Amino acid sequence: MEKVQNYITENKERFLNELFDLLRIPSISAQSEHKPDMVKCAEWLAAALVKSGADRAEVMPTDGNPVVYAEKIIDPAAKTVLVYGHYDVMPVDPRNLWNTNPFEPEIKDGRIWGRGADDDKGQLYMHAKAFEAMCETDTLPCNVKFMLEGEEEIGSPSLYKFCEDNKELLKADIILVSDTSMISMDTPSITCGLRGLTYMEIEVTGPNKDLHSGLFGGAVANPANVLTRLVSSLVDENGKVTIPGFYDDVRELSDEERKAFNEAPFCLEEYKKALDIDDVEGEAGYTTIERTGVRPSLDVNGIWGGYIEEGTKTVIPSKASAKISMRLVPNQDFEKIAVLFENHFRAIAPKSVKVDVKFLHGGAPYVSPTDMAAYKAAEQAIVDTFGKKPLPFYSGGSIPIISGFERILGIKSLLIGFGLSEDAIHSPNESYGLDQFDKGVRTIPYFYKHFAEAK
Amino acid sequence: MEKVQNYITENKERFLNELFDLLRIPSISAQSEHKPDMVKCAEWLAAALVKSGADRAEVMPTDGNPVVYAEKIIDPAAKTVLVYGHYDVMPVDPRNLWNTNPFEPEIKDGRIWGRGADDDKGQLYMHAKAFEAMCETDTLPCNVKFMLEGEEEIGSPSLYKFCEDNKELLKADIILVSDTSMISMDTPSITCGLRGLTYMEIEVTGPNKDLHSGLFGGAVANPANVLTRLVSSLVDENGKVTIPGFYDDVRELSDEERKAFNEAPFCLEEYKKALDIDDVEGEAGYTTIERTGVRPSLDVNGIWGGYIEEGTKTVIPSKASAKISMRLVPNQDFEKIAVLFENHFRAIAPKSVKVDVKFLHGGAPYVSPTDMAAYKAAEQAIVDTFGKKPLPFYSGGSIPIISGFERILGIKSLLIGFGLSEDAIHSPNESYGLDQFDKGVRTIPYFYKHFAEAK
Repeated sequence: MEKVQNYITENKERFLNELFDLLRIPSISAQSEHKPDMVKCAEWLAAALVKSGADRAEVMPTDGNPVVYAEKIIDPAAKTVLVYGHYDVMPVDPRNLWNTNPFEPEIKDGRIWGRGADDDKGQLYMHAKAFEAMCETDTLPCNVKFMLEGEEEIGSPSLYKFCEDNKELLKADIILVSDTSMISMDTPSITCGLRGLTYMEIEVTGPNKDLHSGLFGGAVANPANVLTRLVSSLVDENGKVTIPGFYDDVRELSDEERKAFNEAPFCLEEYKKALDIDDVEGEAGYTTIERTGVRPSLDVNGIWGGYIEEGTKTVIPSKASAKISMRLVPNQDFEKIAVLFENHFRAIAPKSVKVDVKFLHGGAPYVSPTDMAAYKAAEQAIVDTFGKKPLPFYSGGSIPIISGFERILGIKSLLIGFGLSEDAIHSPNESYGLDQFDKGVRTIPYFYKHFAEAK
Repeated sequence: MEKVQNYITENKERFLNELFDLLRIPSISAQSEHKPDMVKCAEWLAAALVKSGADRAEVMPTDGNPVVYAEKIIDPAAKTVLVYGHYDVMPVDPRNLWNTNPFEPEIKDGRIWGRGADDDKGQLYMHAKAFEAMCETDTLPCNVKFMLEGEEEIGSPSLYKFCEDNKELLKADIILVSDTSMISMDTPSITCGLRGLTYMEIEVTGPNKDLHSGLFGGAVANPANVLTRLVSSLVDENGKVTIPGFYDDVRELSDEERKAFNEAPFCLEEYKKALDIDDVEGEAGYTTIERTGVRPSLDVNGIWGGYIEEGTKTVIPSKASAKISMRLVPNQDFEKIAVLFENHFRAIAPKSVKVDVKFLHGGAPYVSPTDMAAYKAAEQAIVDTFGKKPLPFYSGGSIPIISGFERILGIKSLLIGFGLSEDAIHSPNESYGLDQFDKGVRTIPYFYKHFAEAK
C-alpha cells in the first residue's frame, strides 16, 4: 500500500490538471444546448479511463446521454467492484452570484472552485486516479468496472433501461458510489440511508379567465387563495403531513437506534447561524438530524399565480399552481405516495374550483446495510486514512437510481462520499477541498484491499 | 338634439378609427419601459381634444405620468362639467391567452378587441366624441373641462397633488366619470358606490440562500410553505377576514337597505355559467351581489416563490412573496387597514422566518348620492337612450381618486359607465361592444342637456 500512496503523492499535480480539463467541459444535462458537451465529456472520460489502466472503455449510447463503461478484469474468479458516478452537472444560474467562471476551475483557499468540482466530477475522478495508482503499482486486488452516466441531475431517465439491457456486463459484488457528503473532515461518515422522492405539480382553476378583483372579489373563489389554503393544510401545526396513509409504511426507529443516530455531532446554533435563521421548524418530537435523516417531509419547491411583476394588478387569477415534493423514508413507496397525494388533494378541493394533479418524478428511499462486507471494508479504509471510525449517516437527499440498481441488478451500493456541506453543490460557487480530493484518492485503494481480503 | 344624434351617426366610422389609433399606444403605467408611451398617449389626446373643439388643451407634467387638461368655456356663468378619465391601461400578461394583439385593435362579433377597449380609453373617448358632436352642432349647453390621467391603474399617485395644485383650474359643478359598468344593456344602471382598496406586498424570507430540499427538507422552515400558511389564515372558513379590527368601521346595511339592494336583477346560475364555476364562495350570510357591493374582501392578486419553470428542481427557496389586496366599504379607512394588515402579518409570522410588508397603494370607498342634480340628469339621459330608468348600482371595484376629488376639490362625481362584465377589463381579450360605445356617445349629450337645464 506504500507504493500506491507514494504514486499518489508523486502524481498529485497531474491528477488535478486532468480534473481541471474535465471540469472545463460544461456538461449541463438539464439544458439541451449542452448536448454536444455531454458527448464530448463522455469521450474524454473513456479515453482517460483507458490511460488510467482500463482494458476497455466504451461510450455506450442510450435514449439520452451516453454512459461511459470501462473495465479491468484481473481474474474472472475475483471479486468485482462496479464504480458508479455521473459526469453531468447542474445548471449554473444565477450566474451573477458566482465569484469565478463556473467552467474555468481555480484553486483558492485550498479549494477547487467550479461547477462539478464536488458533484460529481471531482468525486468520480478520485476513483479514476485511485484505480490508476493501483494499476500502475500492480496492486489492484479485484476486478473493476466503471459506469458513469450523464443524466443523474435530471433523474437518470435512461439508466434504468441501460441496466436492464446490460445486466451481464454490469455484474458485480458491490456498487461503489462517491456522490454524497461526510459530516466533516474531523467526523468522517458513510452514508447508509437516502430518502426517496415523490414530486408533484398541482394546478387550481377558478373562473375561466382572469377577473377584476374589485368587481368579483369576495364573491368568487380565488384560485390563489384556495391554493394557499389547500397547500398549507398538507402539513399540520405539528409539522406532520396530513395526507391520509402518508405515514403508514414509515419505519419508526427504535429508541436505541434514535439514540445512536443522535450521537452524530451536530450544533443547532451553528446550523441556524449558517442559514441565518432564528429558529428551525419541523415535525414535532424529532431532532433536526432525525427530521432530515429518517423522517419524511413535504416542501413547496415552487408556487405561482396571478400578477408577479413589478407594481400592482388587481386581478383574480384564473389559475394558480405549485410544485410540491415529498422526501420519503423506508419503507414508503414513491408511487403509492403519489396516488395518496393525488386522491387527498382532489378530495380537499372545494366545489368552487377545479384541480389538476400531476406526478412529475420519483424514486425509492435506500438503506445501505452496515453489516455487509463492503461497509466493513469502507469503515476500515477510513480508519486507515482519517485515523478514526466513520459514523453511519442518514442523508436527507435522494439518488433515485441507487434503489433502481438493487431492484434491477440485484447489487447493493456503498455510498462513500467525500463531500462536505460547504461544497455548495447545486449552488453558485461550488467547490471541493484539495484535502477532500486527496483523502478520497488515498482511501479508495484501502477499500479495495479490505474488500478483496474479506471472506 | 337631433342634430347631435345625426352628427354621431354620420361620423361613427371616423370615431372608431380615431379610437383605434389611441388603443394602439401601449400605455401600460405599471411597467417603466412604457414611460415614453405615456407621454405619446397624452400628447395624442391633447391634440385630439383640440380637434374635437376644446379652446385649449395641455399636457401638464406631474411627478409621474402627465395629465391631459383641456377646456371649452362657453360662459363663465354657466355650469361646468369636469370629465375625468384615464389613458393608462393594465399590463397584458398572460400574453399567450390573448386571441388578438392587445395593441392592434380588431372588430369581431360586434365588439372592439384590445387592451383599453373599455378601460378606460374606449369610455373616455366617448366623452371626447360626444363633446365634438355638441361643439360641431353648436349645442354645447355648459362649460366642459377634461382631466385625463395616466396613473389610474397604479393608484393615481400623482393626481392628488395635481388636484391640490390646480384647484382653481379644476373648478366644476360635477365630475363626470365613465370608468364603470352597467348591470346589462337591458338593465342600465348608474354606479353610486365604489369599494376602497388597500394593496399590500409581502415577502417571507427563510434561509439566506436557496437550499437543497433533500438535505434540508423537513428541518428548516420553507418560506413558500410558510407563506401559504400565513396567507390562508387571513380568511377564515366563513369567508371572514381574520385581521383584528378589519370590520370595526364597516357600515352594516339595515334590513331594508339589504332588501332593496337584492332587488337588482341577478341570476346566480348565469353568473356561475359565465365564469365556468360550479360554486361561488364568499362571506357567509351575504348574497353574491352584497359580497361585491357592500362587503369588504381579501384577494391574493399574485403569489410566487421557488422554481416555476418547466420540470422539477428540488429547492427550498430562500424567499416567497405575494401581492394581496383588500376591497373596502364605507366607512373603512384604507390607511388604517394597511396598518392593521401589517401589524397582524408581522404578529402571525413564526420565528423561523423574517417577513417584509409593503403598502403599494390604496384608496377610500365612495358613495355617490342619488338625490343630486347630476344623478337625476344622468337618470333621465339613460331613459332617453335606453328607454328605461337605470338602477342605482354598488360596484365592487375601486377608483381611489374619486373620494380624493371630493376631499381635495369639494366636487362630487357621477359615475356613468357603459362597461359590461363581459368586457374582461384587466384580463386577456378585453373588449368593448360597438353598441356600448355608440350608446355612450349618444347618452352623454342628453346628460349635458338635462344637467344644464336643472335648477
